[in-house]
Amino acid sequence: MKICILGGDGYLGWPTAMHFSARGHDVMVVDNMAKRGWEAEVGATPLEPVPSMQERARHWRQKKFRHIETVIGNIADEGQVMRDICHDFRPDAIIHYGEQPSAPYSMLNQENAVYTQCNNVIGTLNVMFAMREHCPHSHLVKLGTMGEYGTPNIDIEEGWLDITHNGRKDRVLYPKKPHSLYHLSKVHDSHNLEFASRMWDFRVTDLNQGVVYGIATDEIGNDPDLCTSFHYDDIFGTVLNRFVVQAAIGMPLTVYGSGNQIRGYLNIRDTLRCIELAVANPAGIGEFRVFNQFTEQFSIMELAYRVQESAAVQGIKVEIQHLRNPRVEQEKHYYHAVHSGLEDLGLEPHLLNNGVIGHMLEKAVKGASGINEASILPKVDWKHGWQQAAHGNDQAARRDDAPIGLNLDGAIASA
Amino acid sequence: MKICILGGDGYLGWPTAMHFSARGHDVMVVDNMAKRGWEAEVGATPLEPVPSMQERARHWRQKKFRHIETVIGNIADEGQVMRDICHDFRPDAIIHYGEQPSAPYSMLNQENAVYTQCNNVIGTLNVMFAMREHCPHSHLVKLGTMGEYGTPNIDIEEGWLDITHNGRKDRVLYPKKPHSLYHLSKVHDSHNLEFASRMWDFRVTDLNQGVVYGIATDEIGNDPDLCTSFHYDDIFGTVLNRFVVQAAIGMPLTVYGSGNQIRGYLNIRDTLRCIELAVANPAGIGEFRVFNQFTEQFSIMELAYRVQESAAVQGIKVEIQHLRNPRVEQEKHYYHAVHSGLEDLGLEPHLLNNGVIGHMLEKAVKGASGINEASILPKVDWKHGWQQAAHGNDQAARRDDAPIGLNLDGAIASA
Repeated sequence: MKICILGGDGYLGWPTAMHFSARGHDVMVVDNMAKRGWEAEVGATPLEPVPSMQERARHWRQKKFRHIETVIGNIADEGQVMRDICHDFRPDAIIHYGEQPSAPYSMLNQENAVYTQCNNVIGTLNVMFAMREHCPHSHLVKLGTMGEYGTPNIDIEEGWLDITHNGRKDRVLYPKKPHSLYHLSKVHDSHNLEFASRMWDFRVTDLNQGVVYGIATDEIGNDPDLCTSFHYDDIFGTVLNRFVVQAAIGMPLTVYGSGNQIRGYLNIRDTLRCIELAVANPAGIGEFRVFNQFTEQFSIMELAYRVQESAAVQGIKVEIQHLRNPRVEQEKHYYHAVHSGLEDLGLEPHLLNNGVIGHMLEKAVKGASGINEASILPKVDWKHGWQQAAHGNDQAARRDDAPIGLNLDGAIASA
Repeated sequence: MKICILGGDGYLGWPTAMHFSARGHDVMVVDNMAKRGWEAEVGATPLEPVPSMQERARHWRQKKFRHIETVIGNIADEGQVMRDICHDFRPDAIIHYGEQPSAPYSMLNQENAVYTQCNNVIGTLNVMFAMREHCPHSHLVKLGTMGEYGTPNIDIEEGWLDITHNGRKDRVLYPKKPHSLYHLSKVHDSHNLEFASRMWDFRVTDLNQGVVYGIATDEIGNDPDLCTSFHYDDIFGTVLNRFVVQAAIGMPLTVYGSGNQIRGYLNIRDTLRCIELAVANPAGIGEFRVFNQFTEQFSIMELAYRVQESAAVQGIKVEIQHLRNPRVEQEKHYYHAVHSGLEDLGLEPHLLNNGVIGHMLEKAVKGASGINEASILPKVDWKHGWQQAAHGNDQAARRDDAPIGLNLDGAIASA
């Protein structure tokens, strides 16, 4: 099959490209490298250097004798990039990771909020129109997130909800209460794509992912030339990565608020398998299909305890600290989300265990000297945005920045 | 009170400004005149010439000795316009009509789709951020449309839905299936604004309006210097206006498809009263309040019969013709939408009767010689976009354009 991957330079985009290439598919990766710019803007650096998409494609070709076509282009700009791709490459499936992926980045200030919604919504609109023109029956696999749903007091279904109201029935899009302006951009995308399915008979699979963790896939192995990114900073990092890095450098694990917030998680290997299953079993013509893509759920505190345990196995003693929550979110809530669609298609979950955390921890300990401590603590507040006067790349300057949890009310307590 | 009206040059914006000014409020109108450009772009002209916002404000001052402050600026551009307004004027209420308001315009091509969603969503984001910075407790009254809901098989509630699912309860945003990419832009706005209420304690009233008709308000009277626009073309006109103009020039009333599509309608006088009631009874702090703003519902066929009857009273005989529906929509559907919120606040509806239609018809007969026939029939198809090679402003060229209903399958039948 011909597979086009948008956001091919990203944490998941590149591993997905190798995953399909290794299985004999004809793969094209598309990126404009914008995320590397956003990282520089906020002073975030990955744990290990990540070669560019083009370099990794070259290494992949040299080492595995497989070709991945690279396209440098901005899908949110004018629309010609996507029109050319759909016209020339005629993908059977388009896997769309090509969006600004960070909630704190979108909440940093007005400019970033507008940028995030424009970039993500326009990019997806451009994909829709290019497909309508050149490949209306390609299968669009769009990455969304579980954070779109928020934390409703009822079970979270997979995208659609069968409803009875005043004695009448309908099947409706699951109502959402997203966590951030970034998450809202994904909700907007989903609404636009449901419309495209309905109007233009598109085949769309919308994957609401949990938090993905891990940097090990079969194709990456231990090869730094093919690696993917590991972010632990407050803007692009995820909570498990942050905890692992904090443990590695002897910093307390910082929990936002009570830590009772529950989220869904999955291993990067399962993301790849989910995408593979979705592509192998495409949505029907005119179908807007939604899967909730995660394998298990934890509270933030559970996650902290697991990292604490794994660290102890390696002889590292770490504390857990609570910071005032910089986000506006429910900290005590019901959470039950259906996620059987992908398992019905054959997904066999890799669960989070000491082995996985241990592997991440080893990487972090190895890279400890390069870890940018100042980038770890939260600086974006959901009510007020960026809480620092300076946010240049100068390490000393950023070390002076007191993080939100420390300077706003000093409410730090050991757990 | 200080009232800021965004989109003050528009069909409803200007009458709203006079309505509040006449009642002693301190009114500011804001517009960038973009809609006049869009009209020129698609060759649409209103039935009667409409003086600019500044001219009308000048006339208003001369005739009624009341001042309406005018601001020419684009709220979707950079954000400084809204920041200045919120900082300098400190409105008690912001009434937000400032968006691209046409479904066919948004479905015309990719450029217009992207433009519509950007313009509307960014404008509203800029309003949100300017309010957060300078007047977080102003009351934002945002105009939406009933077309956001689509035609669900269950009762349409006012924005929120109390739901029981698997034995648990929650109150959720009413799930929507909008009619066009324009309607989707309004859904995106509503989601962003619900978020702003939740995060930043905003007071927001979201008004989902039905189709507004009429050009007579107390303040306009019969004064052409203070008039508002009457559009009958396929892009910016509404169905009742189209029928009235068709009757006036002896053209059959063109019904899209079967005409069993049901929509909510309201008189322009009721729009003004609804806005007044919403402003006088603001949403609470942190409340995202939704009203469905219409007074009665009709099928398109009922509307056609009413115009036919009103025309007969004036000695005009008109036929009804069915065109192939250029839109993708359900033509036979359940429709029951709650609209009691505004009536509970005191709205006394003006219903659609022969007097109202007759008044519009007289205006149309009087202006018949200037009516641009070629602009009436539909040229935008929901599946394929603009269906004409040429769409310049040249009258002769546009008369040659066969409309969709005639040239695509010739399926025209008399009703």
